[in-house]
Amino acid sequence: MLSKNTIKFINSLQKKKNRNINKLFIVEGDKIVKEIIKSELEIDKIFFTKHWEENIIKNNLSTEIVNENELKKISSLKTPNNALAIVKMPNYKIDKNEIENELSIVLDDLQDPGNLGTIIRTADWFGIKNIICSQNSADVYNPKVVQATMGAIARVKVHYVDIEKYLSNSNFADDFKIYGTFLNGKNMNETKLSDKGLIIMGNESQGISKNIERFVNEKLFIPNYPSNSKTSESLNVSTATAIVCYEFRRGKVWSLKFKV
Amino acid sequence: MLSKNTIKFINSLQKKKNRNINKLFIVEGDKIVKEIIKSELEIDKIFFTKHWEENIIKNNLSTEIVNENELKKISSLKTPNNALAIVKMPNYKIDKNEIENELSIVLDDLQDPGNLGTIIRTADWFGIKNIICSQNSADVYNPKVVQATMGAIARVKVHYVDIEKYLSNSNFADDFKIYGTFLNGKNMNETKLSDKGLIIMGNESQGISKNIERFVNEKLFIPNYPSNSKTSESLNVSTATAIVCYEFRRGKVWSLKFKV
Repeated sequence: MLSKNTIKFINSLQKKKNRNINKLFIVEGDKIVKEIIKSELEIDKIFFTKHWEENIIKNNLSTEIVNENELKKISSLKTPNNALAIVKMPNYKIDKNEIENELSIVLDDLQDPGNLGTIIRTADWFGIKNIICSQNSADVYNPKVVQATMGAIARVKVHYVDIEKYLSNSNFADDFKIYGTFLNGKNMNETKLSDKGLIIMGNESQGISKNIERFVNEKLFIPNYPSNSKTSESLNVSTATAIVCYEFRRGKVWSLKFKV
Repeated sequence: MLSKNTIKFINSLQKKKNRNINKLFIVEGDKIVKEIIKSELEIDKIFFTKHWEENIIKNNLSTEIVNENELKKISSLKTPNNALAIVKMPNYKIDKNEIENELSIVLDDLQDPGNLGTIIRTADWFGIKNIICSQNSADVYNPKVVQATMGAIARVKVHYVDIEKYLSNSNFADDFKIYGTFLNGKNMNETKLSDKGLIIMGNESQGISKNIERFVNEKLFIPNYPSNSKTSESLNVSTATAIVCYEFRRGKVWSLKFKV
């Protein structure tokens, strides 16, 4: 049976402050907990109901079987889903070599947890290993973010830095591309895109801030249709990120085709 | 000053049942209310604070100035934003000719209000005028949906039908394309896409249901990267919809290029 203290402790991890003190976060639900078990993330403990397939549990994991009522007490979901894991925060460092030779995403004050989670899921789909967030961005270990990643949080490394300092001090090569999306950018579909570089995406209402915009050396525009028509002013940032990632990955195939 | 009854009535519109009885829904926030005023939607009444630019108000609109405390009482937002409009539900009919000659989206039991709102915003960006939803899909007049559309709700027509019946009885031409995304579909980037047809997107966890899948005559796949790698199992449905819409619109430019 779960003690009152255990319930209290797990619920305290809903708050960023307590997550950071304990270096722990919560992952919920059948599918996502399975993804975490398969991943390199370290699990502190798993709580699961008897409906869960126990065969997924490795020998060395600390586990506790709970009833549905107990699971409800430690869950933040309306309908808790069989398993909840307490996971140790990984201690990622930015790998300069990886950033210089791959495609990465930079998020400038992204606020909405759902958007951040969706962007992590999208990054994973398109083989993007690193997301660099400004310190004011939503917290990757917020339960809403974790749920929206659908498990991709186990594979994508999310870093928090002072972006302005980071970009100032990075000494990227002159031809290293820093992309951003702007309403006055070049039609992305008619631009040769590199397979390495940074893609900066901005805040939900302000877009990319002025002090970050100055680092962008290739401004891109997602063409609307029909062009110049009266449509929405912009796209949601997580859908815009998805379209940009698709175009970068598709673009590579496309340029290969043209060479043939 | 707002009467108790007015406050009660406006709050009652948070519920679908009451929205449907009164044929009214709520739109909140500076930007979106302005979009509604500019649109063809009929406004029942606008409540706004003295911080709002009154010059946007047309003469024939019923309005009431409220203080911030009053706005809070009728708002569902954490930080109400200057204006709230009560809007009449439009009475859209599906225009067979428009569906047969344009690109439209069909949503098969989409559940999440945020996803529906984002898809409406995306459709607007890509010049898609009609979205046909199954009757179990999220309600377009749910305040969360309305907010997520960022005003696109004023331009995109959302219909609710029994999709299976609709598709069975539509008598589309033999070459009319009905697309859907599937993990075993054809790489979308290597498929010739029509500029007319239906794009079916499925439920968040179940995808497209079996009884709707049988109508799909072109199964598409959004390529992941690197292909065949171990990535997320799928994309969020609103980001997948955005990528598909982008590829359909981009595809048109692309095929024109090839003809030259």
